[in-house]
Amino acid sequence: MRAVTFQAPGEVRVDERPDPEPLAPDDAVVRVEASGICGSDLHIYHGRVPVEPGFTIGHEFAGTVVAAGDAVRRVAVGDRVLGTFHTACGACAACLRGDYHRCREGRTFGHGAKLGDLQGAQAELLLVPSANLALRRVPEGMSAEVALFAGDVMGTGFHAIAHAGMRPGDTVAVLGLGPVGLCAVQAARAAGALRVFAIDSVEQRLAMAERFGAVPVHLTEDDPKRAVRAATDGLGADVVVDAVGDPEPLALAIGLARDAGVVSGIGAYAGRGEVPIGLAWLKGLQLRLGLANVIAHVDRVLALMAAGELDPAPLVTHRMPLDEAPAAYELFDRREALKVVLTP
Amino acid sequence: MRAVTFQAPGEVRVDERPDPEPLAPDDAVVRVEASGICGSDLHIYHGRVPVEPGFTIGHEFAGTVVAAGDAVRRVAVGDRVLGTFHTACGACAACLRGDYHRCREGRTFGHGAKLGDLQGAQAELLLVPSANLALRRVPEGMSAEVALFAGDVMGTGFHAIAHAGMRPGDTVAVLGLGPVGLCAVQAARAAGALRVFAIDSVEQRLAMAERFGAVPVHLTEDDPKRAVRAATDGLGADVVVDAVGDPEPLALAIGLARDAGVVSGIGAYAGRGEVPIGLAWLKGLQLRLGLANVIAHVDRVLALMAAGELDPAPLVTHRMPLDEAPAAYELFDRREALKVVLTP
Amino acid sequence: MRAVTFQAPGEVRVDERPDPEPLAPDDAVVRVEASGICGSDLHIYHGRVPVEPGFTIGHEFAGTVVAAGDAVRRVAVGDRVLGTFHTACGACAACLRGDYHRCREGRTFGHGAKLGDLQGAQAELLLVPSANLALRRVPEGMSAEVALFAGDVMGTGFHAIAHAGMRPGDTVAVLGLGPVGLCAVQAARAAGALRVFAIDSVEQRLAMAERFGAVPVHLTEDDPKRAVRAATDGLGADVVVDAVGDPEPLALAIGLARDAGVVSGIGAYAGRGEVPIGLAWLKGLQLRLGLANVIAHVDRVLALMAAGELDPAPLVTHRMPLDEAPAAYELFDRREALKVVLTP
Amino acid sequence: MRAVTFQAPGEVRVDERPDPEPLAPDDAVVRVEASGICGSDLHIYHGRVPVEPGFTIGHEFAGTVVAAGDAVRRVAVGDRVLGTFHTACGACAACLRGDYHRCREGRTFGHGAKLGDLQGAQAELLLVPSANLALRRVPEGMSAEVALFAGDVMGTGFHAIAHAGMRPGDTVAVLGLGPVGLCAVQAARAAGALRVFAIDSVEQRLAMAERFGAVPVHLTEDDPKRAVRAATDGLGADVVVDAVGDPEPLALAIGLARDAGVVSGIGAYAGRGEVPIGLAWLKGLQLRLGLANVIAHVDRVLALMAAGELDPAPLVTHRMPLDEAPAAYELFDRREALKVVLTP
Repeated sequence: MRAVTFQAPGEVRVDERPDPEPLAPDDAVVRVEASGICGSDLHIYHGRVPVEPGFTIGHEFAGTVVAAGDAVRRVAVGDRVLGTFHTACGACAACLRGDYHRCREGRTFGHGAKLGDLQGAQAELLLVPSANLALRRVPEGMSAEVALFAGDVMGTGFHAIAHAGMRPGDTVAVLGLGPVGLCAVQAARAAGALRVFAIDSVEQRLAMAERFGAVPVHLTEDDPKRAVRAATDGLGADVVVDAVGDPEPLALAIGLARDAGVVSGIGAYAGRGEVPIGLAWLKGLQLRLGLANVIAHVDRVLALMAAGELDPAPLVTHRMPLDEAPAAYELFDRREALKVVLTP
Repeated sequence: MRAVTFQAPGEVRVDERPDPEPLAPDDAVVRVEASGICGSDLHIYHGRVPVEPGFTIGHEFAGTVVAAGDAVRRVAVGDRVLGTFHTACGACAACLRGDYHRCREGRTFGHGAKLGDLQGAQAELLLVPSANLALRRVPEGMSAEVALFAGDVMGTGFHAIAHAGMRPGDTVAVLGLGPVGLCAVQAARAAGALRVFAIDSVEQRLAMAERFGAVPVHLTEDDPKRAVRAATDGLGADVVVDAVGDPEPLALAIGLARDAGVVSGIGAYAGRGEVPIGLAWLKGLQLRLGLANVIAHVDRVLALMAAGELDPAPLVTHRMPLDEAPAAYELFDRREALKVVLTP
Repeated sequence: MRAVTFQAPGEVRVDERPDPEPLAPDDAVVRVEASGICGSDLHIYHGRVPVEPGFTIGHEFAGTVVAAGDAVRRVAVGDRVLGTFHTACGACAACLRGDYHRCREGRTFGHGAKLGDLQGAQAELLLVPSANLALRRVPEGMSAEVALFAGDVMGTGFHAIAHAGMRPGDTVAVLGLGPVGLCAVQAARAAGALRVFAIDSVEQRLAMAERFGAVPVHLTEDDPKRAVRAATDGLGADVVVDAVGDPEPLALAIGLARDAGVVSGIGAYAGRGEVPIGLAWLKGLQLRLGLANVIAHVDRVLALMAAGELDPAPLVTHRMPLDEAPAAYELFDRREALKVVLTP
Repeated sequence: MRAVTFQAPGEVRVDERPDPEPLAPDDAVVRVEASGICGSDLHIYHGRVPVEPGFTIGHEFAGTVVAAGDAVRRVAVGDRVLGTFHTACGACAACLRGDYHRCREGRTFGHGAKLGDLQGAQAELLLVPSANLALRRVPEGMSAEVALFAGDVMGTGFHAIAHAGMRPGDTVAVLGLGPVGLCAVQAARAAGALRVFAIDSVEQRLAMAERFGAVPVHLTEDDPKRAVRAATDGLGADVVVDAVGDPEPLALAIGLARDAGVVSGIGAYAGRGEVPIGLAWLKGLQLRLGLANVIAHVDRVLALMAAGELDPAPLVTHRMPLDEAPAAYELFDRREALKVVLTP
């Protein structure tokens, strides 16, 4: 089969790789119909997340089950399915608490040996271990390129809001309107946010957020703090989502939150950073950090997508054949696309 | 009446001040029986928290109600009472949510004009506004020097554990064994913690924590991370309380917490600090910061103190007359005492 | 002033009564612009809830503040306001927990001596004690007849959903499409319910629920259990609201709920009733009963109403002058109206 | 192997049965060291819960793993283990929510074809499906007869308290001091209950509850309502556990609970029953019903047992050889024992 492999920083390649086969009883193999290129694939592409040369990358996918072990019960051969970006065992202490994203035996698709040594989804075929947790049937009538959002980008936007404990009537601010931020805008609206301030510096993204029901606020040309305060009697936002993952947006998030509010840090922070902890402490904030618990949310997210309450379709700006993956990565790296979907 | 006033950094004085009188219908006046010197009084003493010269300081107290307005219903003249360190209105958006510590009209005793312009409790008499929320009857048989802990130090230790959502069977670590840390140890034990690691570098405090049921761990001579990991199958603590409030202990707290765990930052952070946000994000932690919501907890804390489940008595290492306040502050500043109680 | 008074079962009268005056510092007096007749007023009308002859009834209202004591801070003379159906002290153990509806000193408007001896709102003027908790400003541009829903009927519909812990993506069923049930339908939709089954036997009410986004299900001509099961893969509804308050709908609610689901019993149950507790136990249900905590929700509900996410306007089917109250009660008693609003 | 089989109402027998073998990859086989006779075994014994003649009964056990499929990871051959009373798949919608006790594919040991067709634990050998969820290692030094409580009786007592959301400082009442009620007393104390009222009419059980730290209250010779009210300023208990499971104790539980309190109905209700729903509604209670989610709690319960915070040892009043099962059932049926442990 053909597969997109990491070769070196800035270089991916379409290689011929052996077809995967199910070995464990809860393994499945999926013939990939569509796979997405994600912001975190760029970390690999740039060498910031180290992956072995030749490793197949990609972790967003939908397709059809072509093989399944005896213990696979929730899906069957022939089912159209989508996957979550990682697997979980369902039986360790973290899984039993419902923290599937912190499973001790969890493996992430397409992220190299250190994150579970699991080949990626930008390929014709994909081995899916622990398939009962990692695969779901695609609802009737949903396209593969939409479905694949449920297990990663939309699942993450939904998590950013749900994990923050957002309640109907809350004021929400979202920093960073990449695909995850835009999905967080949708999730907040679907959950009954009174108003969502969507903050970025790219006009197109602000326009899309507005289309999704948010109040667009330009990061530098407008004044986010003033905008949020004016709307909240000076109090600030109940929930602030940082979908960027750097110290600067985190500091802004802390500034935008109301007293005893929640900052939901879904963007990938790295290393150490200078944080206004004094202000966070004075305000009595909760900073809820970490990647998304998509397995916990995927059924709910899919149902809301099937009902049209969440709709990632407008985020798919580019569709390209798998064989053009190198060009697709270049284009995505130039930030010309929101979401590129590859089709084998 | 006599009152301890701030004069200049490093200088407090016992002054004669006019007796307070209740003006608003929910005001009360308390004849102070005992007041404590708190770590946060040292911030004032050192000029880090600016207070007007001549302002009466102190915010931990117990005494007897000598006057009360018409709207004061929960206590009556003649009642022995203790107070919370701040007042709350009970009717603003924050109070209606139960966030009494973030009341928009809240006033802190003895912290100068900026924090509500409310004279302090290290005095013979004290004006208590919003007395229905800020005063509670002292349970039968409880001494004033013990009772005053309920509205500040023990309330804060209890909050550190309750606000973290600690559950019976959790492993807890507490960093910093001043009075608040030691009360957090007691609160964790009372709430069913499986084990509490108490971390400090002062032997006496470690010994007291051990007496309260904790596993003492010396900050530098032992290896806190190794100790916690060894006891938790490598996972880390469910809840870590930072009772210090500096970037360094916060970093250690993040290192000690298990995946998807909670760091309860009760110590007063100031300004900006370098935080290992990458690690906190990878672990999926929640950092719950801010001072304690003592009004929300005070009835519960008092009841547990009356039942002996919480017992701050061993923390009172020094008792001195109000007139010796200058010497008491010097002694406390030299860190020779855990808690100094002043009696008028 | 003129006021609607209870005289005897089946008889109300418009009487001349003395104007109320604020006595306590947190009292306010409101000149009533509109007051509603509520289903619970019918309990008084029929003598099932005993009220002293001559007592002024009514507990839903909006109007203008014409007098306010010194301690009234959240509203001022001249403000247009709406009220909650009861008062709360804000300082007892129940209020401190946020259970304002169970305040030990709470008083219900227009329900006679036993429920707080507080004259009712179907009058020209109304005395409002504890006004900081019981009154809110009417948002710009909102009519009085809409605003009065926030403190009673819409607050109750919202509570039915919020208190059940409904999450976005849940399936909800609502039994009984009187005003409260219809508001619960709106609240569920606003909170992101995937689908809401609205169950009743009155066609007009089913039609209105459908207009609010629900799936209408006729209680007897359709098969509610089959409808819910078919939509949920046989599992049942995550949340079922019983807005009727009798053993029969409660039994149906228990039958409709999924395993480990929640039945939110907002309708007023009375006495003893035969309940399928075996089935409720087998399913592992939570039955969350009781009247609504409107004070906890009123700011949130008002904001959602101002934003148009909740809209009780279609429920106002009749508007009549206060002087025609006897006729209004007769009409309402014949179930010809959803909501009758009286204007002095 | 030998096994205790149900024959007919009032008749159990020790039969020779074929040794079980692991078939599925997550199956394990346990050589039973000790198994308990539970109150729910009496339902089978009396024919109230229908079980096929010849079916092996029993669902509380500890022993040693003698065989394990490839997918069994949490325990290994040779490990001493204890089991939960039922299995769960870990992947269905209920399991993903953490409701393992409502797993759609869950099977209960020793309860006949209708509850999963899974042979019971009162035998020499036991087949354990889904062993990653249903088995746990016995902590060092813990006896089998103590360990077996973690997966059933103590897990249920713990659940009764945890599922009620009990908080440190709460007042708790427990109705019915069989093994589950007595374990609930321990769990409440371990979780920081201020006081636990233990209510029954058997003196020995009251004495044991007192030994566990409860206030004993005789159901008929004392006045439970008066006792609870006197201790709570007339308010009632925050949490009431009904460990009996009949309408009468449920009615008492409703009467004992404070406004907005929780009744945790852990005893097995059956059919329909007359319930004072009017009072429950007036008080604004939550009734949380259903059997225990032991898989969610078992690690926590075991850890607290290993630490001595929970200790079921005193409940084991009788130990008998497996071969004497018929006599053991007769003795247990005469209510002469709290817990009978059978050893093969």
